[in-house]
Amino acid sequence: MIKAYAAMSQGGKLEAFEYDPGPLHADEVEIDVESCGICHSDLSMLDNEWGMTEYPFVPGHEVVGIIKQVGKNVTQLEVGQRVGLGWHAGYCSTCHTCQSGDHNLCSSASMTIAGRHGGFAEQVRAQADAVVAIPDGVNPESAGPLFCGGITVFNPLVQFDIKPTSKVGVIGIGGLGHLALQFLNAWGCEVTAFTSSERKVAEAKEMGAHHVLNSSNPDELEAAAGKFDLIISTVNVKLDWNAYVQTLAPKGRLHFVGATLEPLDLGVFPLILGQRSVSGSPVGSPATIKTMLDFTALHNIEPVTEYFSFDQVNEAIDRLRSGNAHYRIVLKRD
Amino acid sequence: MIKAYAAMSQGGKLEAFEYDPGPLHADEVEIDVESCGICHSDLSMLDNEWGMTEYPFVPGHEVVGIIKQVGKNVTQLEVGQRVGLGWHAGYCSTCHTCQSGDHNLCSSASMTIAGRHGGFAEQVRAQADAVVAIPDGVNPESAGPLFCGGITVFNPLVQFDIKPTSKVGVIGIGGLGHLALQFLNAWGCEVTAFTSSERKVAEAKEMGAHHVLNSSNPDELEAAAGKFDLIISTVNVKLDWNAYVQTLAPKGRLHFVGATLEPLDLGVFPLILGQRSVSGSPVGSPATIKTMLDFTALHNIEPVTEYFSFDQVNEAIDRLRSGNAHYRIVLKRD
Repeated sequence: MIKAYAAMSQGGKLEAFEYDPGPLHADEVEIDVESCGICHSDLSMLDNEWGMTEYPFVPGHEVVGIIKQVGKNVTQLEVGQRVGLGWHAGYCSTCHTCQSGDHNLCSSASMTIAGRHGGFAEQVRAQADAVVAIPDGVNPESAGPLFCGGITVFNPLVQFDIKPTSKVGVIGIGGLGHLALQFLNAWGCEVTAFTSSERKVAEAKEMGAHHVLNSSNPDELEAAAGKFDLIISTVNVKLDWNAYVQTLAPKGRLHFVGATLEPLDLGVFPLILGQRSVSGSPVGSPATIKTMLDFTALHNIEPVTEYFSFDQVNEAIDRLRSGNAHYRIVLKRD
Repeated sequence: MIKAYAAMSQGGKLEAFEYDPGPLHADEVEIDVESCGICHSDLSMLDNEWGMTEYPFVPGHEVVGIIKQVGKNVTQLEVGQRVGLGWHAGYCSTCHTCQSGDHNLCSSASMTIAGRHGGFAEQVRAQADAVVAIPDGVNPESAGPLFCGGITVFNPLVQFDIKPTSKVGVIGIGGLGHLALQFLNAWGCEVTAFTSSERKVAEAKEMGAHHVLNSSNPDELEAAAGKFDLIISTVNVKLDWNAYVQTLAPKGRLHFVGATLEPLDLGVFPLILGQRSVSGSPVGSPATIKTMLDFTALHNIEPVTEYFSFDQVNEAIDRLRSGNAHYRIVLKRD
C-alpha cells in the first residue's frame, strides 16, 4: 500500500489516503518521494477545471526522490538513484512524435496526476522513460519545481533556437516567470520582466532581468514597440495581446506557456507586416529536461521556494491559491 | 511626362493621367512597363480600404519591363535589362532589419503604389535596390504576378525552413494559392489544396496538389486532424481557424498571407498542447525574390494568367472584382 494525500471530491481538502498500486510494471520505477512541488495545474486538476480529474485525486507532479524499485526491463535507472518526475509519467515511445524526440507532444503520453496517483505521497510510480536522474550541482531540496514549472519555460529556448543575442520579455513574474528570468539571463539574452507588481521590481532584477517594464502602464508598453524577439507569457489571465504583439521586433514571437481560457482575438495585419508568430508549448521532453538540469547546475539556477511539510499540504494549497507564494511551494519530508 | 492610368477618387474608374516624375534620383531606375499584374491589394488601395491611398492613384505593383534609364549611383542594373518590380519600391538599407537581409520588413520601405505612382503606366520608377533582374527561363509575359502574389507564398518556405518532407496545406486556390501549389510541389512537399470549389479540384491537382480537401465539409477537416506541418492561408475571409489549428501536426504552423480584417479568436490550449504556431508574413526581400525566380525557372513554374491590354484596365479590374479570374490578371502592351 502507498500512503498518499488525496481529495475525495472537486476542490475538496486533501486527506490521508492509501492505495494498492499492484505489481510494478516491467518498464516502471517506484520512487520514494523526498519532496514535491505544487504547481498551479495541481489546483486546476483538484478543482476539475479541465474536466478530466478522477477522485480520489492525488496531486503532485514535481517530484524529487530516490528510486526504491525498478521493473525488470528498466536498465537506465537503478535503486538508490536520485531522480525527478514531472507532468508526464510515460510515453508511447513508438509514435513518430516520440521517435522524433518530441515525447512531450506524444498524444498517448500518460500524466502523473491523471489516470494515475501523483507525488503527494510516500511513493509514486512512473515509466522509467519519464524519470530523469538529478545531476550533481542541482540542489535536490528545491529541484522539484524544475520538473514542471522550470522545463515549461526552458523548453521554448531550445525549441525555437533562441539566440544569446535575443531580446526576451517575460510576462508574469511568479512560479514560472522567476525561473524564466534566471534561465534567460544565463542564456545570454537581454531580459525584460513585465510585471504590474511594484514589489517584484528589485527581485526581478536580482533574478536576471536587465529591465523591468510596468505592464499596467500602456505608455511603457507603447515605448517598447518593435523591441522583443521573444515574449514568454506565463500568466493565465487575458491581457491586451495585440499591444504585446506590437512590442515584438520583426520576426518576433509571442509565446504562451500559461493557458488563458479566453481566445486570443489577434489582429492579422501586425502578424503579416512584421512576420510575427504566436505560439504555445507545454513541458519538455526527457532529453530537454536533462539539458535543463545540466544548464541549471552550471549556472547555479535555483527555484525560489517556500517549504511546507507533507502534513501541511492543505495550508500549502491555500498559500498557493492566495497568489502570494514566493515563488514556488515545495512539500518536503520532515 | 509619364502616361498612366489613375483613379481620381475612392473606387473610381481609372482614366488616362499624366504626371511629371521630375529628375531621376541617383539611386533610382526608370522602367518601360511591358506588362503589369493586378493584385487584390491594388483593389484594396483603389477602394482606400487601408486608409492610406492618395488620389490620383496609379495602381500596379507586379511590373515587368525594360530599364529605360538609371540614376548615377546605380551600378547593379543597366539600360535595356529586363526587370521586375513588386510591392516595395525601395528600402532604407541602413536599419538593422535591412542589414539582416529582411528588407521586406523594413519599417521605412517605400511602396510602389503608396506615396508613388505605380505600374499601370508607360513608365514606372523605383529605387534600384527593389528592382530584380528576370533570369532566362522565366517567361516575362506572365512573370508580373511572381513579384507580389508569387513571392508572398514562396517567402514562408524560405523563412520557416520548410522541408521537402513536410506536409503542407494551402487554403484558397486563387491568385496566390495556385502559385503556392506549384512551388510546394517542386519543393518536394506532400501538398493538400483546401478548397470549397468543386471546379477547382482537377486544376489543383494539375498544379501540384496531391490531395484536395473540401474545406466546406467539417468532416473532411476533422479527418485531417494532426496532419499538417504548415498551412498557408491565402484567403481574406474569416474561417473557423480553430478547426484548421486542429489539423496541424505537433509543431505545425498556420500561416497567414491573406489578411482577414476580423481577429483570429484562437484558443490557447491547442497551441500549447501541440507546440503550434500561428503567424503571418508579407512579400519577400529582394534576395528571396531572386531565389524564387531561379527556382521558378528551374521547375517551369508559371502563373496562370488572363491577359488584358492596358486600355482595358477597367474591364480587367471588374474581372478581378468578380472573383472569377483564372487565376491572375495581367495587363500588357498590345
